[in-house]
Amino acid sequence: MFKIEANSDFSIHNLPYGIFSDKTEDKRIGIAIGDSVFDLTTAVKDGIFDQVPYECMLTGTLNEFIKLGKSITNGVRTKLQSLIASEDSSLNKYIVKQEAVTMHLPVQVGDYTDFYSSEEHATNVGKLYRDPENALMPNWKHIPVGYHGRSSSIVVDGTNIVRPQGQIKPSKLDSPFFGPTEALDFELETGFIIGKENKQGSSIPVEEAEEYIFGMVLLNDWSARDIQKWEYVPLGPFLGKNFATSISPWVIPYEALKPFLVKGPEQNPPVLDYLKVVGNKNIDLKLQVKINNTIVSNSNFKYMYWNMNQQIAHHSVNGCNLRIGDLMGSGTISGKDESALGSLLEISRGGKKKVALNDGSYRTFLEDGDTVTLTGYCEKDGKRVGFGKVSGQILPAKKN
Amino acid sequence: MFKIEANSDFSIHNLPYGIFSDKTEDKRIGIAIGDSVFDLTTAVKDGIFDQVPYECMLTGTLNEFIKLGKSITNGVRTKLQSLIASEDSSLNKYIVKQEAVTMHLPVQVGDYTDFYSSEEHATNVGKLYRDPENALMPNWKHIPVGYHGRSSSIVVDGTNIVRPQGQIKPSKLDSPFFGPTEALDFELETGFIIGKENKQGSSIPVEEAEEYIFGMVLLNDWSARDIQKWEYVPLGPFLGKNFATSISPWVIPYEALKPFLVKGPEQNPPVLDYLKVVGNKNIDLKLQVKINNTIVSNSNFKYMYWNMNQQIAHHSVNGCNLRIGDLMGSGTISGKDESALGSLLEISRGGKKKVALNDGSYRTFLEDGDTVTLTGYCEKDGKRVGFGKVSGQILPAKKN
Repeated sequence: MFKIEANSDFSIHNLPYGIFSDKTEDKRIGIAIGDSVFDLTTAVKDGIFDQVPYECMLTGTLNEFIKLGKSITNGVRTKLQSLIASEDSSLNKYIVKQEAVTMHLPVQVGDYTDFYSSEEHATNVGKLYRDPENALMPNWKHIPVGYHGRSSSIVVDGTNIVRPQGQIKPSKLDSPFFGPTEALDFELETGFIIGKENKQGSSIPVEEAEEYIFGMVLLNDWSARDIQKWEYVPLGPFLGKNFATSISPWVIPYEALKPFLVKGPEQNPPVLDYLKVVGNKNIDLKLQVKINNTIVSNSNFKYMYWNMNQQIAHHSVNGCNLRIGDLMGSGTISGKDESALGSLLEISRGGKKKVALNDGSYRTFLEDGDTVTLTGYCEKDGKRVGFGKVSGQILPAKKN
Repeated sequence: MFKIEANSDFSIHNLPYGIFSDKTEDKRIGIAIGDSVFDLTTAVKDGIFDQVPYECMLTGTLNEFIKLGKSITNGVRTKLQSLIASEDSSLNKYIVKQEAVTMHLPVQVGDYTDFYSSEEHATNVGKLYRDPENALMPNWKHIPVGYHGRSSSIVVDGTNIVRPQGQIKPSKLDSPFFGPTEALDFELETGFIIGKENKQGSSIPVEEAEEYIFGMVLLNDWSARDIQKWEYVPLGPFLGKNFATSISPWVIPYEALKPFLVKGPEQNPPVLDYLKVVGNKNIDLKLQVKINNTIVSNSNFKYMYWNMNQQIAHHSVNGCNLRIGDLMGSGTISGKDESALGSLLEISRGGKKKVALNDGSYRTFLEDGDTVTLTGYCEKDGKRVGFGKVSGQILPAKKN
């Protein structure tokens, strides 16, 4: 039987969905419980969840399951919670230890959008890349600024990241040169998975946006700052970002996160009507970044200026259609504190300040062999809902 | 039997692939010949092309067929050419009139990338949006600048386009307002479909790039200039573009376009080694844009500063993985002439000059009810290879 330690990320209040395989190599849908995985695919096959058609379990992604809608997917969670609470021994048959499985990408991502919704991060980056006096762009407090990222290069926790190469032009040179990035960085983000579709040409009202959030993951938006700096004007980041984006394997259902909703920062100037929200829409989600075994950031998702509901309303207000499985990144999550910065660009002040690691070495940006690990959890009134982790190790650039 | 008129886009030298349906509604793979469609799916079922597995014909997109590789897909074209040349009467069984079929999106697009590769267009837009004295960014002649677009909203020829709404901030106002775009535009582009994959972390050498181009389509990158202008700094275009992108239904195989390869513009300053090409890489492809029944532009794909080979090499040089079915847009194709501008933004000089239509009306940007049609063809030594058309009509904005 499974074991749920008191500080487990995967308490009975969580029950996140993921895609796993074990010796048989068939990809199945699992639900994390404590140190184990509940094999939902096999349980559905056995008729334990009679509202779930077995075909939805066989595609190797969560997309078809998500498509069933929240009344069914939440029904699965509620039923499993009561089976666990009643210590129903029939569960044992479907339990696999997490250490014995391989996790895969949870969804097939159609489109990946990355927002830029932390005021602290946007200000810090604006100061370093642009004008220190006018760090925040005039549109920033009116628009949850975002852009399209690359879906092909989204990888799951544990995937190694090859150091990218590209064009770099230091300001002291007249022309760019070609080489491996000298400013490889992480970005501490969360992501959410779209769980409902709107038709092209129709928008999603902000008050209905919650229905479109299936669940959340941790996200590391790997960035090559030197490549990005040279390429990004005027069409935005491209090769500086699209070589890899890592996400955690367990999708935390939005319903598991609702107990941790808190008020967000005041929005001033007031936002346009289609972005106005009522009630708590931010989440008190503690986040941490480690490089190897050194903690380099402690941040919190509650700092975000723009919330997910506003991001959905904005993204679709022009009639752009969102599809099930689409991934929306929050943008780097920085807080006001020095200890709450979500990227090395900010921590090292653009490469000027060295960051000490526990082993006595220093970093401005990432070195080959470094492993970056993001973790996060919500906790309140004895309830803990954790995200697990997303990590990745840097491999040297390919020889040309 | 089919008929091939002398000026048909779909000569025996072309044989483009598409996805069609007729009364049965099953989506099948077709090849355009003159006024007809050759039903490849049924022909494969009957064993006429024994190298093609029937399963590849049943997915409703070209992706699995393309995955077979060029030796097989080109083999299909060569065999069909000889069957047509020999006037083999067994062909008749597979012929459907084009007027009797519905065309669908030819591929499932994983990621859509849009480049910005016409020097004339980048200069014209730079003058209007930024600094007239420094219209071209310092990176432009070193990098085939591109960005990620939205794949969910790619639609096929004939799909109506709902006028998008969003935030607009005229320079005379302090704050943005919300409303339908007042500056809806087309962009004359071509697109190409990726036909071979590279592994994440590996790049595609420019001299091998041709193997990765399956074929080409016409592309209209609909744009809302006022929304775009307010949102695009610093992360690039987003809602100003992602409401819709239209493509033509027939994918012209790259092999059909090789007879029309020509030299591109001289690239000065010289490009970095990974972008250096030898031989002719531009295509003499005549392009035309109509608003309703008025021709508003006659341009040519041969004007492009950056070619597709360079775009592929650049896109993958950082290890970004391209997937079969990915769509790469050229960017707006403008020539030096006043008559060869690829967008209303340029033709109307940012909305300042009225464009006369044949019916006596004027446009600065598109009005509700307008239909924009792009066409294109290559012609040389009596051989004609045409692209058909991509058109779309503007519907009024949705009432909120």
